[in-house]
Amino acid sequence: MSQPEIPTEQWAQVVEKTGGPVTYKKIPVQKPGPDEVLVNVKYSGVCHTDLHAMQGDWPLATKLPLVGGHEGAGVVVARGELVKDVQIGDHVGIKWLNGSCLDCSFCLQSDEPLCPKALLSGYTVDGTFQQYAIAKAAHVARIPKSCDLEVIAPVLCAGITVYKGLKESGARPGQWVAIVGAGGGLGSMALQYAKAMGLRTIAIDGGEEKAKSTKALGAEAYVDFQSSKNIVQDVKTATPDGLGPQAVLLLAVSEKPFQQATEYVRSRGSVVCIGLPANAFLRAPVFDTVVRMINIKGSYVGNRQDTAEAIEFFARGLINVPSKTVGLSELQNVYQLMTEGKIVGRYVVDTSR
Amino acid sequence: MSQPEIPTEQWAQVVEKTGGPVTYKKIPVQKPGPDEVLVNVKYSGVCHTDLHAMQGDWPLATKLPLVGGHEGAGVVVARGELVKDVQIGDHVGIKWLNGSCLDCSFCLQSDEPLCPKALLSGYTVDGTFQQYAIAKAAHVARIPKSCDLEVIAPVLCAGITVYKGLKESGARPGQWVAIVGAGGGLGSMALQYAKAMGLRTIAIDGGEEKAKSTKALGAEAYVDFQSSKNIVQDVKTATPDGLGPQAVLLLAVSEKPFQQATEYVRSRGSVVCIGLPANAFLRAPVFDTVVRMINIKGSYVGNRQDTAEAIEFFARGLINVPSKTVGLSELQNVYQLMTEGKIVGRYVVDTSR
Amino acid sequence: MSQPEIPTEQWAQVVEKTGGPVTYKKIPVQKPGPDEVLVNVKYSGVCHTDLHAMQGDWPLATKLPLVGGHEGAGVVVARGELVKDVQIGDHVGIKWLNGSCLDCSFCLQSDEPLCPKALLSGYTVDGTFQQYAIAKAAHVARIPKSCDLEVIAPVLCAGITVYKGLKESGARPGQWVAIVGAGGGLGSMALQYAKAMGLRTIAIDGGEEKAKSTKALGAEAYVDFQSSKNIVQDVKTATPDGLGPQAVLLLAVSEKPFQQATEYVRSRGSVVCIGLPANAFLRAPVFDTVVRMINIKGSYVGNRQDTAEAIEFFARGLINVPSKTVGLSELQNVYQLMTEGKIVGRYVVDTSR
Amino acid sequence: MSQPEIPTEQWAQVVEKTGGPVTYKKIPVQKPGPDEVLVNVKYSGVCHTDLHAMQGDWPLATKLPLVGGHEGAGVVVARGELVKDVQIGDHVGIKWLNGSCLDCSFCLQSDEPLCPKALLSGYTVDGTFQQYAIAKAAHVARIPKSCDLEVIAPVLCAGITVYKGLKESGARPGQWVAIVGAGGGLGSMALQYAKAMGLRTIAIDGGEEKAKSTKALGAEAYVDFQSSKNIVQDVKTATPDGLGPQAVLLLAVSEKPFQQATEYVRSRGSVVCIGLPANAFLRAPVFDTVVRMINIKGSYVGNRQDTAEAIEFFARGLINVPSKTVGLSELQNVYQLMTEGKIVGRYVVDTSR
Repeated sequence: MSQPEIPTEQWAQVVEKTGGPVTYKKIPVQKPGPDEVLVNVKYSGVCHTDLHAMQGDWPLATKLPLVGGHEGAGVVVARGELVKDVQIGDHVGIKWLNGSCLDCSFCLQSDEPLCPKALLSGYTVDGTFQQYAIAKAAHVARIPKSCDLEVIAPVLCAGITVYKGLKESGARPGQWVAIVGAGGGLGSMALQYAKAMGLRTIAIDGGEEKAKSTKALGAEAYVDFQSSKNIVQDVKTATPDGLGPQAVLLLAVSEKPFQQATEYVRSRGSVVCIGLPANAFLRAPVFDTVVRMINIKGSYVGNRQDTAEAIEFFARGLINVPSKTVGLSELQNVYQLMTEGKIVGRYVVDTSR
Repeated sequence: MSQPEIPTEQWAQVVEKTGGPVTYKKIPVQKPGPDEVLVNVKYSGVCHTDLHAMQGDWPLATKLPLVGGHEGAGVVVARGELVKDVQIGDHVGIKWLNGSCLDCSFCLQSDEPLCPKALLSGYTVDGTFQQYAIAKAAHVARIPKSCDLEVIAPVLCAGITVYKGLKESGARPGQWVAIVGAGGGLGSMALQYAKAMGLRTIAIDGGEEKAKSTKALGAEAYVDFQSSKNIVQDVKTATPDGLGPQAVLLLAVSEKPFQQATEYVRSRGSVVCIGLPANAFLRAPVFDTVVRMINIKGSYVGNRQDTAEAIEFFARGLINVPSKTVGLSELQNVYQLMTEGKIVGRYVVDTSR
Repeated sequence: MSQPEIPTEQWAQVVEKTGGPVTYKKIPVQKPGPDEVLVNVKYSGVCHTDLHAMQGDWPLATKLPLVGGHEGAGVVVARGELVKDVQIGDHVGIKWLNGSCLDCSFCLQSDEPLCPKALLSGYTVDGTFQQYAIAKAAHVARIPKSCDLEVIAPVLCAGITVYKGLKESGARPGQWVAIVGAGGGLGSMALQYAKAMGLRTIAIDGGEEKAKSTKALGAEAYVDFQSSKNIVQDVKTATPDGLGPQAVLLLAVSEKPFQQATEYVRSRGSVVCIGLPANAFLRAPVFDTVVRMINIKGSYVGNRQDTAEAIEFFARGLINVPSKTVGLSELQNVYQLMTEGKIVGRYVVDTSR
Repeated sequence: MSQPEIPTEQWAQVVEKTGGPVTYKKIPVQKPGPDEVLVNVKYSGVCHTDLHAMQGDWPLATKLPLVGGHEGAGVVVARGELVKDVQIGDHVGIKWLNGSCLDCSFCLQSDEPLCPKALLSGYTVDGTFQQYAIAKAAHVARIPKSCDLEVIAPVLCAGITVYKGLKESGARPGQWVAIVGAGGGLGSMALQYAKAMGLRTIAIDGGEEKAKSTKALGAEAYVDFQSSKNIVQDVKTATPDGLGPQAVLLLAVSEKPFQQATEYVRSRGSVVCIGLPANAFLRAPVFDTVVRMINIKGSYVGNRQDTAEAIEFFARGLINVPSKTVGLSELQNVYQLMTEGKIVGRYVVDTSR
């Protein structure tokens, strides 16, 4: 295959200072190091994390100036001399974990996301809100050419993350998982992954519209936190034996839903925290946690194997991603909608406009 | 073997009303049902739980009047007609879990302690602060005749509980476990069980004396919460790579040690809560729990298999129980010392006096 | 509910001597012991094991005279005085494991099928080829009243067994399982359970007809051992990366398919043996087993929890059992067809005729 | 630290053709590639595998001419430009797994030894029977400077392999493992690792001398296959409840010990095959394997994490390696003794002579 032509300049959205906003401007295209690839990003999903990064919400500082974005799908256009398994022309994804040392005790145990030297796309290194982005070859997600790059983009963070959370929950096929925030972008993917994994789901969200949308995605029960008089009881009743779901996926942790989750989860069950609201705390009564042997665990992004598995479910056509595409130039508007809580599903930016 | 003579009356310590005190008096000896045994209790350990039960500290009501106690070691003197595997003359232990249905989804999965119909010795049924106590045959702990009944009594709750907690922690041989409250009665057993399981321990407690006693029991490091200027850092430093212990056993949960534990435990590690202080809450920052994939879990008492295993470690001579024996008649004094926080190690009552 | 009328005599199929045949005759109805129930068996599946039992094929001797059968679905008509959780009128199943001690180290770890004192229906105790059969209350399978007793009968052994095998395989949702003998009675259930558990299947069997029937039940690939020139290669090729399935279910073990299975299973994968041909041996090259870390394991019948789970999948309508019903009086004919290898799917006997 | 001086030529033992012998001669020193290190090998253990490699015993061809050896302990003297985590002067071990792709599905799941592109020291790439050897930086074992390089050499294959086998066995602290071939080089290390992991061991070997040596290393029982009249019964009797050990480690698989192992292992137990005799086959009765749910598994060498753990046990002083050191020039003599079955313990070669 002929070497693709790579420009020296490109369009990008740049955070110049913590707090934002993003600036749409031309910046240089980087060259990949020996173990890196250069990816022509075609589409990138926009995640709440990108907004948190721009606003400096989390206890870890970002690179500055920063190109955000960590759900980028594109084509490999250049690679370092040591890269063997990734070819020019391959379709790949750049995800939150841009690289890791592959040599520490966490990497040795397939927990690359916990590597102390992990590089984070759109956070500690530049991400995918640009036309050409760098990533460690060992870490790019392999995307089959049968997959549409525009549609798969949000899978690269949202999809992998909920899939990982479901794996971490320990729920086995035939068991029940309650999904808190099931009607949102992550929630709708979680419902579909759960179904593909043989799990039965209870969707928890607010309003009649979400009752419909979540059931259409496979939820067997719906609990409306706006109208329910007793959420704990309603969730437990949704399971045939009334003992509650074996696992709970918390996609939007705040103290109240968290404490409720520890009450309605089945004894010996797991409450898996995924969402990352600023400054939030878990809180649970010791007595109940102990005598019911509740397991509360944090689940972060997936490792490389989780990534491959999550993409395979998508490639099989089992995961439908509700997204809306706009030009990369409109990113600040997307953040505005996000801030106002007006986003349903997932926004994707097209880097060509 | 000739049928032992069973009196119709016996000495017992009875809680007449919530709040106590206990009354030392004569009460009738019960007869075992078809699937039960009658045990001539020789010795019984005194656990903080007994005090909580008398005082009504927990959200679950006790039987009244109540004979407390759930660490009873004795001899089977009678059995129901369906009992086959336990013989008259066998040495057995009556533990917290007096019986369970053996038929619910928890019992079916060897989680008898989570059985909704569980009978609790010294709480929902009369316990071991009497000379003759009843227990379900399927649930009595089998004690080898080589074991001293006086010494093994505290193993039946404290020993099994810490052993279970260590199993639940998921720590593997060669890995590190921090034991919070290592200098107390449970702690000293936890140190020994951990060592016998090939685990390495960091003892956390207060004062110079406990530094000595915990190291004598196998702790490889000691962190003094009274004198440490940075407990989190000191615990992490105690592990060779500075990443902290793979697990933490919280034997005395209160909010502060709990939150610290989530900070010094290694990423992907487990914080196991065992202690049951009244009205306490777990509290942990969501961000750290998620990105470090921390696992917080409650561990209750052991099931029947855990019981057999914990006793086997003891029978091999690997667990030395620091206890002091007084007459059953002095139980109220023991409670008094307990209330004043003056107990080191474990008290055992001799039912013959 | 009024006590049902129980006759003193009933029709049964009795094996008078090893080697058979079965004799259709009237025998007395038994009374349940204190922890037993008497079940009015309505339908019973016929399993190859029943034929093995009659013929004395296995190294363990049967009771004689023997009433065979261990897939009986019926209604509880009487119970012993200690039985609490099962009610007169409940629909239940009598399965291979008629009872166990609930007290040995295997029972304590939920491995009741390995109990040395296990009672086996239609083998060491009388089974379900009679109108009224006895079983331990703790062991009867609970059947929801929404389930058709005629259709569910074969699930009670065949269904549970393949479900257990799939669990034991360790295959996770999204992974591949090859099912050897996929076109037979067990195989067709295995395909459906696998699909319900999120697993992907490769059916292995012989002939064009089975290609169709297995694909209709969800198999994603079919390898025909009659026409394939290289079974090992064909099975590996059926997985997208060519590395072979993560697990293999051997429903009809004989030496050749077994050795092939160890060759095409993915490295680190599991070969699960379920079938029980007389006098067969496993045989595998040490070198390949070691350097590819292959796991060969035997999977026996399910425990009580597996039973409940397998029935729940059925009750959800996910398992379609291809069976044909004849009168209990015709059992010998069924054995004849079985001996001739002429049975596709599963025979069920109706005890009323 | 100043750059060490590296010669251009060095002494090595070279296999010129399959079948051997080895030739002691001078060969050039190689230069490390970008992701490799050059190690000045000080000592190398001699493993039966080296003999198998020279003789071409296994179905996989070796490189030719070949420098064997895969238990090399030495000092890093040069490194490629991408190597960051290994420093010049570090003490490291070169083990069987010289390198792997770190990118395939096995590497992604920490199963580097199963990588199809794995480089094998002393087999597909030159090994440690030379003074300067090359290895992938990501794969060298990290050796603390407190460890004696001469003594640790055999740990790098024998130690890691038996430790891995014990992990794979699934045996938990307090459970029993029978070690077949306990008196040999691997066996003596297995006994010590088992003890350090809280496991109880039954040593199986031949003769009175091995009874003593194995008990001195922690075996709680000894079964002499030379004098035992019923090995199966004797091994079972060695466990307190007579049900046999939970796991068996087969360090010298041949058909007979293998079949016996499946008979005396406890139901639900694991038989772990480690030894690799030429052309051997596993053979086990299907019936017993299924109804007792026996697990037969191959265990190969450890991954990088297993390596780190095995070395840590050694560094703690818990593993005493019985070895004898000779000059590298005498390697052919060692092979001669090995062929004659005259080696007890482990030989180590000193590359300086």
